[in-house]
Amino acid sequence: MTKLIFDCDPGVDDAIALFLAFASPELELLAITTTAGNVSASLTARNAAIIRQIAGREDVPIHAGADRPLFRAAVEAGAFHGESGLGPLELFTPAKGVEAGHAAQAIVDIVMAHAPGEVTLAVTGPCTNLALAMQLEPTLAARLGPVVVMGGARREGGNITASAEFNIFADPHAAQVVFASGARCVVMGLDVTHQVRADPARTAAIAAIDRPAAKASTVLLEFSNALERDIVGGTGAPIHDPCVIAYLLAPQLFTLRRCDLQVETSSPLTLGHTAVEFRLPDPAAARIEWATGADADGVFTLLTERLAR
Amino acid sequence: MTKLIFDCDPGVDDAIALFLAFASPELELLAITTTAGNVSASLTARNAAIIRQIAGREDVPIHAGADRPLFRAAVEAGAFHGESGLGPLELFTPAKGVEAGHAAQAIVDIVMAHAPGEVTLAVTGPCTNLALAMQLEPTLAARLGPVVVMGGARREGGNITASAEFNIFADPHAAQVVFASGARCVVMGLDVTHQVRADPARTAAIAAIDRPAAKASTVLLEFSNALERDIVGGTGAPIHDPCVIAYLLAPQLFTLRRCDLQVETSSPLTLGHTAVEFRLPDPAAARIEWATGADADGVFTLLTERLAR
Amino acid sequence: MTKLIFDCDPGVDDAIALFLAFASPELELLAITTTAGNVSASLTARNAAIIRQIAGREDVPIHAGADRPLFRAAVEAGAFHGESGLGPLELFTPAKGVEAGHAAQAIVDIVMAHAPGEVTLAVTGPCTNLALAMQLEPTLAARLGPVVVMGGARREGGNITASAEFNIFADPHAAQVVFASGARCVVMGLDVTHQVRADPARTAAIAAIDRPAAKASTVLLEFSNALERDIVGGTGAPIHDPCVIAYLLAPQLFTLRRCDLQVETSSPLTLGHTAVEFRLPDPAAARIEWATGADADGVFTLLTERLAR
Amino acid sequence: MTKLIFDCDPGVDDAIALFLAFASPELELLAITTTAGNVSASLTARNAAIIRQIAGREDVPIHAGADRPLFRAAVEAGAFHGESGLGPLELFTPAKGVEAGHAAQAIVDIVMAHAPGEVTLAVTGPCTNLALAMQLEPTLAARLGPVVVMGGARREGGNITASAEFNIFADPHAAQVVFASGARCVVMGLDVTHQVRADPARTAAIAAIDRPAAKASTVLLEFSNALERDIVGGTGAPIHDPCVIAYLLAPQLFTLRRCDLQVETSSPLTLGHTAVEFRLPDPAAARIEWATGADADGVFTLLTERLAR
Repeated sequence: MTKLIFDCDPGVDDAIALFLAFASPELELLAITTTAGNVSASLTARNAAIIRQIAGREDVPIHAGADRPLFRAAVEAGAFHGESGLGPLELFTPAKGVEAGHAAQAIVDIVMAHAPGEVTLAVTGPCTNLALAMQLEPTLAARLGPVVVMGGARREGGNITASAEFNIFADPHAAQVVFASGARCVVMGLDVTHQVRADPARTAAIAAIDRPAAKASTVLLEFSNALERDIVGGTGAPIHDPCVIAYLLAPQLFTLRRCDLQVETSSPLTLGHTAVEFRLPDPAAARIEWATGADADGVFTLLTERLAR
Repeated sequence: MTKLIFDCDPGVDDAIALFLAFASPELELLAITTTAGNVSASLTARNAAIIRQIAGREDVPIHAGADRPLFRAAVEAGAFHGESGLGPLELFTPAKGVEAGHAAQAIVDIVMAHAPGEVTLAVTGPCTNLALAMQLEPTLAARLGPVVVMGGARREGGNITASAEFNIFADPHAAQVVFASGARCVVMGLDVTHQVRADPARTAAIAAIDRPAAKASTVLLEFSNALERDIVGGTGAPIHDPCVIAYLLAPQLFTLRRCDLQVETSSPLTLGHTAVEFRLPDPAAARIEWATGADADGVFTLLTERLAR
Repeated sequence: MTKLIFDCDPGVDDAIALFLAFASPELELLAITTTAGNVSASLTARNAAIIRQIAGREDVPIHAGADRPLFRAAVEAGAFHGESGLGPLELFTPAKGVEAGHAAQAIVDIVMAHAPGEVTLAVTGPCTNLALAMQLEPTLAARLGPVVVMGGARREGGNITASAEFNIFADPHAAQVVFASGARCVVMGLDVTHQVRADPARTAAIAAIDRPAAKASTVLLEFSNALERDIVGGTGAPIHDPCVIAYLLAPQLFTLRRCDLQVETSSPLTLGHTAVEFRLPDPAAARIEWATGADADGVFTLLTERLAR
Repeated sequence: MTKLIFDCDPGVDDAIALFLAFASPELELLAITTTAGNVSASLTARNAAIIRQIAGREDVPIHAGADRPLFRAAVEAGAFHGESGLGPLELFTPAKGVEAGHAAQAIVDIVMAHAPGEVTLAVTGPCTNLALAMQLEPTLAARLGPVVVMGGARREGGNITASAEFNIFADPHAAQVVFASGARCVVMGLDVTHQVRADPARTAAIAAIDRPAAKASTVLLEFSNALERDIVGGTGAPIHDPCVIAYLLAPQLFTLRRCDLQVETSSPLTLGHTAVEFRLPDPAAARIEWATGADADGVFTLLTERLAR
C-alpha cells in the first residue's frame, strides 16, 4: 500500500483525482494538503473538504496551505474551474473542516515521522506547499519517496501562455525548487494529459454509475467538456490531475523518459516554461522522469471502475 | 517568377537548399547573402561561392555579411556541418568570389530598388543580415515581400538546447527584430522540418542522379544521415533549409497556421525559444504563419526532380 | 520599550549589534532568530548563543531558521567573517542551545500573539526567515510593527558585486517579498553604513572598556579593521548591522527618505541590486524609508556607552 | 589636433557640446553623426544642421543614422529637451542638409580610411550608430582611437529610472556592444556630469557674450535650468554632453578610474544600469575608464572662453 500525501488545489480535475484516490485501497491517504492555485486558498481547502465528504472519507485529514506563490504574483484559473473552483457542482458547508497547522508543516511532520522513502507525494496544483516544506526542513527531499507532479508542457506548448502550463506558471519558483531538490520526480505534463480526454463514450460510462462520487464527477466532466468545446474547440476535455493518481495505481499505463528539467523563472515571456532535456550525459543519474505517453483507455477504465465501487 | 534574395549560412542543408533554388526557373535569384551561423562568416561566404560554381550559376551575386550575431556571443554548429561547413564535400577555391558591400546593405539596395512587395526573402541561417538591413533602412520591412525563415521549434522542443532551435538561438535578437517588424513571415521550424527526412529510399533516388549538384547533395545527405544515426539515433536526417525553397516553389506542400511569435532574448535557460501563440484576438491581423505540416514525399519529389535537371 | 525580534546571521557585525541590543534596556528582546548568511545556518545559530552567553542574556530565546535562500543558490561571506563567522573570537560551546521550532514559525507565533504593530523586527542578515514567515501567515505583514533591515546600496555601488550588497544579494527574492509586503520598512544600506566606521579613536574607546561584551567587540572590530585595511585599503571598517539597533535606540542619529524600493531578482548581472526611487507620485503612501545619512559619532558614542554598562 | 567624429542626438546639451566642439581648434571635426535619442532621428539630424549653421561650420559633414535602438523599443526624452529637441530655441530650415549614407557606414568609412587609433569618437547619445558600425565592420573596434561616451550612473542612481541613465537606457544593447568591443572607452556618467552645473554665475558669464553660439547656448541653459528648478528642485542643470568635449580638450579637468563595465540588457527593472566594477584582477588590462570627478569651474571656464571666440 502506498502511503500518500495528496497536495492539490481543487479545481475540477483535482476533484476527480481526489475521488479516484479516495476510492483506491492501494493508497493510504495520510493527508490532503491544499494550496492556492485554480482558485484561492480558502476555496481549495473548502472544496477538498466537500469532495472528502461526498466520498465519505472524513478519516483523511486536510491541511490548508499556501495562499500565494513562493515569489511571483498570484494567478488564478477561475475561467476553467468556475468561481467556486468546482464548476456547477452544488456545494454545501462540509461537516468537517480542516486541521490546524500549515500544509507545509504537515508535510514535514508526516514525512519525517515515516521511514526514508516511505511517503509518496502527489502534487496536482502549484508546488508551493512542497517547496515551503523543503525550506522548513532541509532534509525533507532526501527523505521523500516519489513525487508525482501534474505540470509542464513540452510537445504541447502551453495552456496559460504560449510556452507554459498553468500549474508551473502559477509558481515556477516552487516547481524549480522541487525539481532541483534531488527528490525523485515523475512529471505529468500536457504532453500526456492531453492524450487522456473525457470523450463522449468515456463520459457516458461514468455518467451511468449511480454513486455520489460518480455523479459529482459527471457534473465536473460535463462542465469541462463544455468549456473545451466552446473555448478550445475540442472534443473531450483532458483530465490532467487524475493522471497522477492513475500513475500511482497503474504505472504501466504511462510511458516515462528520464530527463533533466529546469523551470524558467526569470523571463516574463517564457515564465513557467519547462525545459525538458532528454540528451543526458548520465541518464542513470537522472532524478526526474517525464511522461511521454498514456494508455487513455486504461486510465478511463481504471477511473470508471473505481468510481463504481 | 519570384524575385528572391537568399540569405544563408551554408551549411550542409543550406547547400542543398541552394542547389534547389539554383535549379528552379520559378525563382529569379537577385542575390545570395551570407552570414555567420553554422560556421564562420568567411566560410559561409566561400561555401556559397563553391555551391554556386557547382551549380554553374555564377550569374548570381553573393554578398558576405554579418560575422557575428546582433548582440549575443557567437555560437557555431560545426559538429553538424563539419569543420568546413560542407561536411566531407571536396572543396576548391571558387573561380568567382563575393561582391563588395555588406550583405545587409545589399539587401537594402536591392529591395529599395524594386517595387513594394516585389522581393521575397529566404532566410536559412540566423536573421542577422535582415535585422541589420531593417536597422539601416527603417522602411525596409514595409517594402519587403514575404520572408520565409527556417527557424524555431514548438512541438519538437529544441535541437541546440532543450527549448531552442539553432538558427534562432544563434541570433535571437535578430529573429525577434524580423518577426516584430511587420513583415509577412512564414516560419519553418523543427515541427515541420523534422517531418522531411532523407530516408534511404529518398536518398537513393538522389544518389542515382548523375549530375554535379545531385552528386554533391548525395555526399551532404549521407553525411547528415550518418550524424543523425550516430548522434540522435534516428533514420534519415531532416532537411531543414530546403523546406524554405520548397515552400516558395510549392506552397501547397505545407500546412501553415497564423500565429503570434515572440522570441526569448533575455533568459539564459530559454534563450532563442520561439513562443508560438495560435490563440489570437484577431487572426486576420496576424503577420506570421507557422508551418505545422509538410508533405515530405512531395518535397523530396520536387527536390529530386530539380536536382535531375 | 520596543518589543523586538532580532533576525540575524552572526557574523562579526551582527555580533556587535547583538551586544548593543542586549545592553539596551529600551529593547525587550522577544527572540533572536538566525538564518544562513554570513556563514551557514548551524554556525549562525551557535554564534548567536555564544554572543548571548557572553552578554549574560540567556533569558532571550533563540530560534534557528532558514539554512538556504528562498530560491537562489546559497552564497556565503566567510572571507569577511572568518570560518567560524566570528573572526578570531575564542569560541566555546554555549551552555544553552536554541529552542525547538523554525525561526519563521517563531516569528509568526510571536507577532500574532501581540497586538497589531506591537512587535518590531530587526533584520541584519538575508530576509529569508521573515519572507517565509509572511508566506506561512498571510496576515503577518499587516500585523508587524516597523521592520528595520540592513541591506542594499544606492550611492555606494555594491560590495559583493558591482551593483549589489551582500544581504540582499544573498536572498534577493526574500528581500523583495518583504519590501513588497506592505510592512513599514526602514532600510540601512551601504550608503549609510559606510559612513559609520570604526576608526582608530572609536575602536580605542571600546577597547578601553573592561567588560566581556566590550572585549569581544574589540576583537571583532580589530578583525574587521584589518580586513578593511588589507582588502579594501580603507581605514576603519564600517559597522553595518549595529546601525539597525542604533536606529531603534536613537532614530535621530539617521536621516531617512521615503522611497519605492524594488529588488532585482532575475538578471545575473544585477542580482540583488536595490532600485531605490525617490521620485514618488504619492510620497505619503510610501511604506519604505531609505537611510541616507548617519551621525557616526553619535552611533559610536551610543555603542561605547552601552558596551560599558 | 584630434581627428573627431561626434555622434550625438541634439538635444539641448548636445547642442552646447557641439558649439564647444565647433569653436575648438584642437579638434578636427571629420563628421557629425546623429541618432534617435533625445528626440526622433529626423529631428536630431535637423537640429545638428541648425547648430552647425549657427556656428558657421558648414564645412563639417553631417550623416543621419539610426532611427531606433538596436533591439529594444524606442524611448525619447522630449520632456527635458522640448518637442523640437532644442527647447525654446528659435529654429529655421538649415541652408545645408545632411549627407547621403547612413551614419554607421560613414563611421566605418572614415575610421577605416585613417590610420589605426587616429580617429576619436565622441558619443553623446545612445550608442546605436557606433554599435551598428562595429557590426558592419568587424575590425572597427581595433582601429578606433578613444571613444568618449556620455552615459551611465554609479553613485548618482539613474535619471530615467531608479537605476539607469537615459543614454544607456535608450539603447543598452548598443552600449554593451561598444563597451565589450575592446575599444578604449572613457565614460562620463551622471556621477561626474552632476558635478558640472550651470549655476547662476556660470550661466550669467555665458549670457554676457554677444556671439550667436553663446546666445543660443544661453537660451538652452536657461531652459534646462528652469526644468531643473521646476522638476528636480535643483539649482543649475547639469551639462552632461559638454563634459565629453571638455574632456577631449582638457583631460586634466576630470578624474578617471579604470573599471570593468557591463550594461544590464535583460531585466526590465534595471535595464540600462551600468555595473561599474573597480575591483579588477588586472587593472592594467582594463579598456574602460569611468569618470569620478570633474573640475566644474574649469569646464565652465573653458566653455565660456570658447563660446566667446
